[in-house]
Amino acid sequence: MYAGGGEYNVAYALSRYGMRTGWISRLVDNPLGQFIKNHARTSGMDVSEVVWVPYDGVGRADRIGLNFTEVGIGVRASVTMYDRGHTAVAHMKNGDVDWTRIFGARGVRWFHTGGIFTALSDTCADVALESMRAAHAAGTIVSYDLNFRSKLWSSKKAIEVTKKLVPYIDVLIGNEEDFQKVLGFDVEGTDEHLKKLPIEGYKNMVQKVVATYPNIRAVGTTLREVVSGLVNNWSAIMYYDGQFHHSRRYENLEIEDRVGGGDGFCSGFVYGLLHGMPPQECVEMGAAHGALLQSTRGDTSMVTMEEIRHVMGGGSARIKR
Amino acid sequence: MYAGGGEYNVAYALSRYGMRTGWISRLVDNPLGQFIKNHARTSGMDVSEVVWVPYDGVGRADRIGLNFTEVGIGVRASVTMYDRGHTAVAHMKNGDVDWTRIFGARGVRWFHTGGIFTALSDTCADVALESMRAAHAAGTIVSYDLNFRSKLWSSKKAIEVTKKLVPYIDVLIGNEEDFQKVLGFDVEGTDEHLKKLPIEGYKNMVQKVVATYPNIRAVGTTLREVVSGLVNNWSAIMYYDGQFHHSRRYENLEIEDRVGGGDGFCSGFVYGLLHGMPPQECVEMGAAHGALLQSTRGDTSMVTMEEIRHVMGGGSARIKR
Amino acid sequence: MYAGGGEYNVAYALSRYGMRTGWISRLVDNPLGQFIKNHARTSGMDVSEVVWVPYDGVGRADRIGLNFTEVGIGVRASVTMYDRGHTAVAHMKNGDVDWTRIFGARGVRWFHTGGIFTALSDTCADVALESMRAAHAAGTIVSYDLNFRSKLWSSKKAIEVTKKLVPYIDVLIGNEEDFQKVLGFDVEGTDEHLKKLPIEGYKNMVQKVVATYPNIRAVGTTLREVVSGLVNNWSAIMYYDGQFHHSRRYENLEIEDRVGGGDGFCSGFVYGLLHGMPPQECVEMGAAHGALLQSTRGDTSMVTMEEIRHVMGGGSARIKR
Amino acid sequence: MYAGGGEYNVAYALSRYGMRTGWISRLVDNPLGQFIKNHARTSGMDVSEVVWVPYDGVGRADRIGLNFTEVGIGVRASVTMYDRGHTAVAHMKNGDVDWTRIFGARGVRWFHTGGIFTALSDTCADVALESMRAAHAAGTIVSYDLNFRSKLWSSKKAIEVTKKLVPYIDVLIGNEEDFQKVLGFDVEGTDEHLKKLPIEGYKNMVQKVVATYPNIRAVGTTLREVVSGLVNNWSAIMYYDGQFHHSRRYENLEIEDRVGGGDGFCSGFVYGLLHGMPPQECVEMGAAHGALLQSTRGDTSMVTMEEIRHVMGGGSARIKR
Amino acid sequence: MYAGGGEYNVAYALSRYGMRTGWISRLVDNPLGQFIKNHARTSGMDVSEVVWVPYDGVGRADRIGLNFTEVGIGVRASVTMYDRGHTAVAHMKNGDVDWTRIFGARGVRWFHTGGIFTALSDTCADVALESMRAAHAAGTIVSYDLNFRSKLWSSKKAIEVTKKLVPYIDVLIGNEEDFQKVLGFDVEGTDEHLKKLPIEGYKNMVQKVVATYPNIRAVGTTLREVVSGLVNNWSAIMYYDGQFHHSRRYENLEIEDRVGGGDGFCSGFVYGLLHGMPPQECVEMGAAHGALLQSTRGDTSMVTMEEIRHVMGGGSARIKR
Amino acid sequence: MYAGGGEYNVAYALSRYGMRTGWISRLVDNPLGQFIKNHARTSGMDVSEVVWVPYDGVGRADRIGLNFTEVGIGVRASVTMYDRGHTAVAHMKNGDVDWTRIFGARGVRWFHTGGIFTALSDTCADVALESMRAAHAAGTIVSYDLNFRSKLWSSKKAIEVTKKLVPYIDVLIGNEEDFQKVLGFDVEGTDEHLKKLPIEGYKNMVQKVVATYPNIRAVGTTLREVVSGLVNNWSAIMYYDGQFHHSRRYENLEIEDRVGGGDGFCSGFVYGLLHGMPPQECVEMGAAHGALLQSTRGDTSMVTMEEIRHVMGGGSARIKR
Repeated sequence: MYAGGGEYNVAYALSRYGMRTGWISRLVDNPLGQFIKNHARTSGMDVSEVVWVPYDGVGRADRIGLNFTEVGIGVRASVTMYDRGHTAVAHMKNGDVDWTRIFGARGVRWFHTGGIFTALSDTCADVALESMRAAHAAGTIVSYDLNFRSKLWSSKKAIEVTKKLVPYIDVLIGNEEDFQKVLGFDVEGTDEHLKKLPIEGYKNMVQKVVATYPNIRAVGTTLREVVSGLVNNWSAIMYYDGQFHHSRRYENLEIEDRVGGGDGFCSGFVYGLLHGMPPQECVEMGAAHGALLQSTRGDTSMVTMEEIRHVMGGGSARIKR
Repeated sequence: MYAGGGEYNVAYALSRYGMRTGWISRLVDNPLGQFIKNHARTSGMDVSEVVWVPYDGVGRADRIGLNFTEVGIGVRASVTMYDRGHTAVAHMKNGDVDWTRIFGARGVRWFHTGGIFTALSDTCADVALESMRAAHAAGTIVSYDLNFRSKLWSSKKAIEVTKKLVPYIDVLIGNEEDFQKVLGFDVEGTDEHLKKLPIEGYKNMVQKVVATYPNIRAVGTTLREVVSGLVNNWSAIMYYDGQFHHSRRYENLEIEDRVGGGDGFCSGFVYGLLHGMPPQECVEMGAAHGALLQSTRGDTSMVTMEEIRHVMGGGSARIKR
Repeated sequence: MYAGGGEYNVAYALSRYGMRTGWISRLVDNPLGQFIKNHARTSGMDVSEVVWVPYDGVGRADRIGLNFTEVGIGVRASVTMYDRGHTAVAHMKNGDVDWTRIFGARGVRWFHTGGIFTALSDTCADVALESMRAAHAAGTIVSYDLNFRSKLWSSKKAIEVTKKLVPYIDVLIGNEEDFQKVLGFDVEGTDEHLKKLPIEGYKNMVQKVVATYPNIRAVGTTLREVVSGLVNNWSAIMYYDGQFHHSRRYENLEIEDRVGGGDGFCSGFVYGLLHGMPPQECVEMGAAHGALLQSTRGDTSMVTMEEIRHVMGGGSARIKR
Repeated sequence: MYAGGGEYNVAYALSRYGMRTGWISRLVDNPLGQFIKNHARTSGMDVSEVVWVPYDGVGRADRIGLNFTEVGIGVRASVTMYDRGHTAVAHMKNGDVDWTRIFGARGVRWFHTGGIFTALSDTCADVALESMRAAHAAGTIVSYDLNFRSKLWSSKKAIEVTKKLVPYIDVLIGNEEDFQKVLGFDVEGTDEHLKKLPIEGYKNMVQKVVATYPNIRAVGTTLREVVSGLVNNWSAIMYYDGQFHHSRRYENLEIEDRVGGGDGFCSGFVYGLLHGMPPQECVEMGAAHGALLQSTRGDTSMVTMEEIRHVMGGGSARIKR
Repeated sequence: MYAGGGEYNVAYALSRYGMRTGWISRLVDNPLGQFIKNHARTSGMDVSEVVWVPYDGVGRADRIGLNFTEVGIGVRASVTMYDRGHTAVAHMKNGDVDWTRIFGARGVRWFHTGGIFTALSDTCADVALESMRAAHAAGTIVSYDLNFRSKLWSSKKAIEVTKKLVPYIDVLIGNEEDFQKVLGFDVEGTDEHLKKLPIEGYKNMVQKVVATYPNIRAVGTTLREVVSGLVNNWSAIMYYDGQFHHSRRYENLEIEDRVGGGDGFCSGFVYGLLHGMPPQECVEMGAAHGALLQSTRGDTSMVTMEEIRHVMGGGSARIKR
Repeated sequence: MYAGGGEYNVAYALSRYGMRTGWISRLVDNPLGQFIKNHARTSGMDVSEVVWVPYDGVGRADRIGLNFTEVGIGVRASVTMYDRGHTAVAHMKNGDVDWTRIFGARGVRWFHTGGIFTALSDTCADVALESMRAAHAAGTIVSYDLNFRSKLWSSKKAIEVTKKLVPYIDVLIGNEEDFQKVLGFDVEGTDEHLKKLPIEGYKNMVQKVVATYPNIRAVGTTLREVVSGLVNNWSAIMYYDGQFHHSRRYENLEIEDRVGGGDGFCSGFVYGLLHGMPPQECVEMGAAHGALLQSTRGDTSMVTMEEIRHVMGGGSARIKR
């Protein structure tokens, strides 16, 4: 049993690596909600701004979402079954959180959210807009992970909703299919199963994105080629200041549980940017953290900064003792 | 991880002891729904009348209910946290099932339902009425377990709804507090914590019930005195044909998991009635089965008919080898 | 703890994919026998024709067979230790089952058995002959999986016994070594460890088999090259109507537990034939199902038809969410 | 998964407490046989005289016996399902072991066997006689635990066989029902379920036994009153030199797993006799060890001599830290 | 695997019930130290004042202490094996922590420590004195749990060291044997095994203690009678303002794991005092919390305030649903 | 939970394969020490020369060392955290063991120790010298596994201490980095991460070693190329009588747990030498055993001689049944 979620995993990892982070959501006050709070607090995340709602004893009003994950191997893919209808967070609405105070008085430097939260409900989409606008107004950097989930909404709805959010995004993150399904930009040369990825097509597409939305200052993209349930090729590209930076390519990477890999990239990448690392190092840190995160079960990071730096530097998997 | 439910547990047990039973519900077609179907089929229950609905991938439309149970010991009580809002079965409505065909063409002898199903939603209350009426019309015996759950509805609502159902009940089942909370009949001399139960008060109350509703031909009541989380006193009383029959009293009964005890009584009791056993034997079988069911984890029966008969006969817990 | 067996696994899988199947064996009425019955019933298999024998309390007369399996990795092979002497099924004999009624009155379309059952005892070999003859006489299609097991009998005995059965076989199934050890047909060019398989040699051998036994209308063969304990190359060939059909080749397939792979092929293959699929699709379905079955622990299928079709179509192991 | 057996448990415990012991049986050379050898050697038992037979790969010729145990609670009794037919040890026969060398050249002081081994087969009964005679001739003390098991043989057969063995017994051990079922001596005043035990009746019976067989110098009897699956009353009586010695009575003793309790008594008792303790101390050590052994899962002793002495001395279950 | 410790358990529980608490220790920066930090942060404890030392990779310089606990039942007592030599905290010394800043600038209202920490080493005894003096000087209330552990020091040494600390204690806590072993005050009428406790003797002893040390304003004492490994009688007495207050007596309380019971009392008791509850309520809260804490595995509290209040009020262990 | 250690693993494996072995250490008499004794005795190792010391109840005087191992996958390396300071064995000193009697009177043919023991403390280094000298004087063959562990000592200290031991070594064992870190001999052409190993450089280095220390008659070296956490290339070289013998190269070997691989090589290698196998066979047995040992969890061998011979002969990982 693990706690996780798009923004949660990023905040968790950054807190684990010594940064002060907070996470805001709407949680039900029952043992499952407490489990999340406890897990969050192990990393030192500030959860004092979470909106708590009482539990009705049945799960009619507000629930904690559950995901059941099968881990794949060979030709069998990993599968996630969502049981996340009617969750407390899906009922979040404008006004629940005082974003102005948070981004202003509390002096937040970076705000991260993304497409899963936005997709949960129309009121969540409202909250995404409200919070991103407030962050933008306060001078807080806004990053957004497109994170398309076909079970949560259609591509058409995603594009329609996300278009309103893009003007407030400084740093855009996505994987192979997100740009197409959430922003409506096509990549030339992709095959249906995404087994081989056309790097040049990606770059052209990213250039179109930043030309269309000049407010976007950086774009981080993970590239995953699924060799099998156990083995993936993994790497990342970062666009920054007119240039592309390729991470080390992790050929034939074994993965214990691929869920959370994108958030692993995102948190490593944001860590780099917030520490003023050069772009190449940022993308390497993101890719290395994503690779390591996929070597353990669960969505959140269990590795150390020392391990990340070792892998970024091309270090081997030789035993440490 | 266990499958269970009021009617489910009764059908499961009777099927396990060689009777042909079926169970009707509304289930979502996802791995949790399949888990229930699989578990049901191990006992041989007929689940062909279950209404299946597709899963929306998220749990917004229809879910499978979840209960999280802590098993108590000492002064710590068992606790059940329900996560059963928005379940497929709560969305059941009149017309979903062709009750006339089932009680008529399929020749069902006995129909059992109860207060948990009725409490799930207004449409479930409608279905309870529809199905009980149809059973009654077809000459099928109707049993009803009052099963009050304060987390599902108020006593006021329960009384209001249940009053409409009582005219169709032949066999009424309840525990210590059900008659008061669901039917509105008081028992004199009960203390708040139900540690010591006033047997005479119960009998008076049952007599009032059957006087008010002469269609009720039998009443089965379980009596539980909670000594501690591990140890309970347990017994049952049956009213039949103007007379009361007391089961053996299980003094200082150790319980591994008390959930399902009432259903264990109910299934043993119905088994007796359907096999034409004398009333005393019916109540003994119910009480013995309930005692045994509480000696294993989970809601459904894992014991054998041989063990039930052994315990009914006052048999000891001496090892069999 | 898993239930499994050659014919059992095939019936289980076909039932899981919506077909009406039954399975006949001779079982002891103890908790282990009940475990098998329960597991079978989860898939909906009809086990009403199973011959039940009482348990003597000790396991002297009739037992349930046990297999202890170690799952290999690297250079360590999987190992199965059998503890299946004196099983109830090994004591099956002619007359125990009324095959004429089953294949006649119950209208069975397809009958599947194979070399493990036949090898259990001389009376089992008798029953194989009796049942296959009865099926043949009733116009039921007979499939037979050669399934050589050196721990159960010698190649010499296998050939001698199987020769009498072959005239009643319509569809023959085997892996690389079965044809040689059970039917006595050599494949040219095989090395001792079966690391690289000579496809042409197989085809020549199959053509000799069907020339010798013209009653055999289809032959399904799985081809496994053991790269390591974790990684195998896997594919299948089907001979039908004078032609060979090659499945997709699963290069470097990771396997979680290789036991049941052949039965996985067989059930997929039979599914195709019974649904009137073209031969190429039949062999693809068999190979895909076999590949998927090896991605989970235990002998029986845990995957869905949707996953099979996805893999048959060359689909990737990309996460579904 | 545990290793155990009547004689085995006694040898294991005595070795654990620092004595040199050996254990002789007939085992199959497969992973289960090796498991037993490994477990035995952890206590330092000498297993060099075990007769090993090769495994046929299937379990047709010789098996390792399996027992499946359910642990009871409340009204549910513990149940043991034996799967011990066709075991290697059941095929033991006269001449397999050179008893003369063992009791002579190796200087064994004490030989212990009992009614489970004797019941396994006619050839085992022969071996019991052969070995006890050889021990007797060599001046080795012979102890015998009557250990009646109704699943292994009838009382009639037990009496018939055991009568031939009794002349060679020096120390006789049994529980409440053994004397009646295996030797044919009745106890007056026992009820069918053995819930309350008539101590005086036992004493009279024991005196009849020693009068009939004056070679018996000591008799150890365990007395168990089964209050429930979790709680038993437990004590023991020793007859020695014309006198009875009662152990401390363990009222309302909680038991984690009652299997092995009798062997726990036996090993403690023999330990005392071999160390020249006075009779009262012998019976106390036996009863204390039996009580402690029942506080852990499995048949063999996991407690320390320090714990035994603490309990013998009436010590409490207060935490040690 | 659990985290725990005398002061830790108290801080953990109070934080769990909504109070702001902190915990100070000296920890090694390795995965075990991080495990403790993570566990502490789940309850919201402030661990920012913990003194961290690097790990030498081997455990020569500083370790995290380990306790291995066997949970008893029946006549078998729970046993704790300490592996806590050379721990980082045992190497704590005066000056490591700026107590003046903590009790002064940070405004701590209550300081709790006790005899386990003091016993770890001579430098720990120095730190106990330094910190208690600083707390006293800052007007912080000081509570001290005598907590005698015979494996850590002798009674003679304990008395000698503790005498210097007593002048700074406001609230004294202890169990049955602590006053004698740590302070040197005898209780008349105790038996060696502490099975029956002489209440009057205790009261006399407590009065002598407060007469000798008038700075002690309250004394909390837990009374445990060990019926068996599973069942204890449990209660508590509080001396305050010249009067004794007896808690509810928990007769035949079942315990899942008795470790942490005293800390459970202490934290409930302190909670009451800090919330200005009347003395009777304070001792009831302590006793109830201690009873509940012993109903779960591990040293730290897993129950809710609602459960504590329910038990304090004499509530039954009847299921909540 | 596993028992293990450099010399222990070698003795365990050789005993498992039928040789008489003993193991000498200094152990604490607590449950952890008993766990090691029990585990050792399962293989038949003689542990009668182990020096036992009492436990102080706290772990201040003498402890059993603990290692916590994370098993790596993908880019995440396995990690071992040692908690082995202040262990009983680290306090071993000259005179604790009567080496003259052991190598003389008990007729030991081979003595194996290595760099982990030597590194534990200065007194352990003394004992290494004392024991190796005594073995040498008695004509016992001495093998030494360099086994460098950076967490235990520096390379500088290792070289200084080991130089005194080398004159007594007959058979030297090491992996890629040991010769450099422990003996001070460089290999030309190694990269920092040891991903690709320069075979020729190794050979040159080994020749320098034997030229410098002509008493060394054989050198066994394991070569590991770490492809990933799951996959390594593995092989070994043996220098003997002026010639090099290369084992089969295990390309892309999957490893379940790499700890113990070197000891697996060592024990296979010594087995070959003691059985008079030709050098090529010795190095093959070592490499095969090391490969197999890494296919199971824990440090000690769980495979059979039959499996070793199968793998040595190039046998495949095809299932055995």
